[in-house]
Amino acid sequence: MENSGNGEERFGSQISFINEIDKLKGIERQTLVLSGRRQENDAEHSWHIAVMALILVEYAGDRDVDLSRVIALLLIHDLVEIDAGDTYCYDDDARQDQYDREKQAAARLFGMLPVDQAHYFQSLWCEFESRSTAEARFAAALDRLQPLIHNYRTEGRMWRAHGITADRVRDRMSPLRDGAPALWRYALSLINDAVERGFLLPAPHDDG
Amino acid sequence: MENSGNGEERFGSQISFINEIDKLKGIERQTLVLSGRRQENDAEHSWHIAVMALILVEYAGDRDVDLSRVIALLLIHDLVEIDAGDTYCYDDDARQDQYDREKQAAARLFGMLPVDQAHYFQSLWCEFESRSTAEARFAAALDRLQPLIHNYRTEGRMWRAHGITADRVRDRMSPLRDGAPALWRYALSLINDAVERGFLLPAPHDDG
Repeated sequence: MENSGNGEERFGSQISFINEIDKLKGIERQTLVLSGRRQENDAEHSWHIAVMALILVEYAGDRDVDLSRVIALLLIHDLVEIDAGDTYCYDDDARQDQYDREKQAAARLFGMLPVDQAHYFQSLWCEFESRSTAEARFAAALDRLQPLIHNYRTEGRMWRAHGITADRVRDRMSPLRDGAPALWRYALSLINDAVERGFLLPAPHDDG
Repeated sequence: MENSGNGEERFGSQISFINEIDKLKGIERQTLVLSGRRQENDAEHSWHIAVMALILVEYAGDRDVDLSRVIALLLIHDLVEIDAGDTYCYDDDARQDQYDREKQAAARLFGMLPVDQAHYFQSLWCEFESRSTAEARFAAALDRLQPLIHNYRTEGRMWRAHGITADRVRDRMSPLRDGAPALWRYALSLINDAVERGFLLPAPHDDG
């Protein structure tokens, strides 16, 4: 509106994008809210981990992490699922073409924005996906930790529904090791406790 | 965990708070998601306006606004509704004791955090409520604009259900005037158009 000759067009495309991303509220995840009453959606999850970043930043692997970029990464990291859908992290078949589907989604969605902001959102998303910075590694750690806590506190209902084993959850949590070492130790303790309490199947080799 | 002798206690209270605020996902607002299928909740709304801040910061009344603080304000501004509930902005009776109820909620909720973080969250919430900074004024502008857009794009269904008139919506949008003057002009155009299209009742004095 104020910043160039085509200000109205710029503003119009920003508002169109803001309306489009409302759809994130309809993308259901394979994680329950803590009451256990329903699955949470991507918008709720993104909000939750952004607040987690405010609180847990002292545990980032790199203590000089730029918190405001961590939060920007977390706020936008799931937008591509508006087109590509939520790919369950333990669904190996669906994960095969996940990156291609999400790359197309990023091009369409971020392409709705004015060019400078399209580039900014695209670069944030690429940074998150590639975990190329300390910020992205800490963001990935929080993105993994939150569903672990939710699965643990809802007695592993979604893990059990999908027959997930402890080794797969441990693999899934591996970004915590670099991204937030203290939180990695916490995640391991939750996984071990979940197996002990029967919320989570033991790793196959733990059986024999 | 790492930062003091009582690190475990500190971490424990942080995780308790993170689990407690999951309840924000269950606080329903008097605004529909854009599909019109259901009311949105506070967590979804908080996420949406935080992303709006990333995109619309160029319209802030103060061009030097600190975006990262704007986003922190937006992420936490509704947490008090976990205890105090969502007070409908046009319910004058409920609004009478709203501030007292929310102050109590802030004390309980933020009091769950380690002292330094309790103070930080309390000060963010007070800043938002008092609109004492350019950041809080811009945050308040976005907090008002988003439901206006949703009401407009869902053809005023919630306005009509509550018999809301244009003058009340205009009053409600007044923080936009200082917080984001360009967005204030946009808000006025939406309100006028909503009346023309029959989404919103005209102001009483417009009738006669």
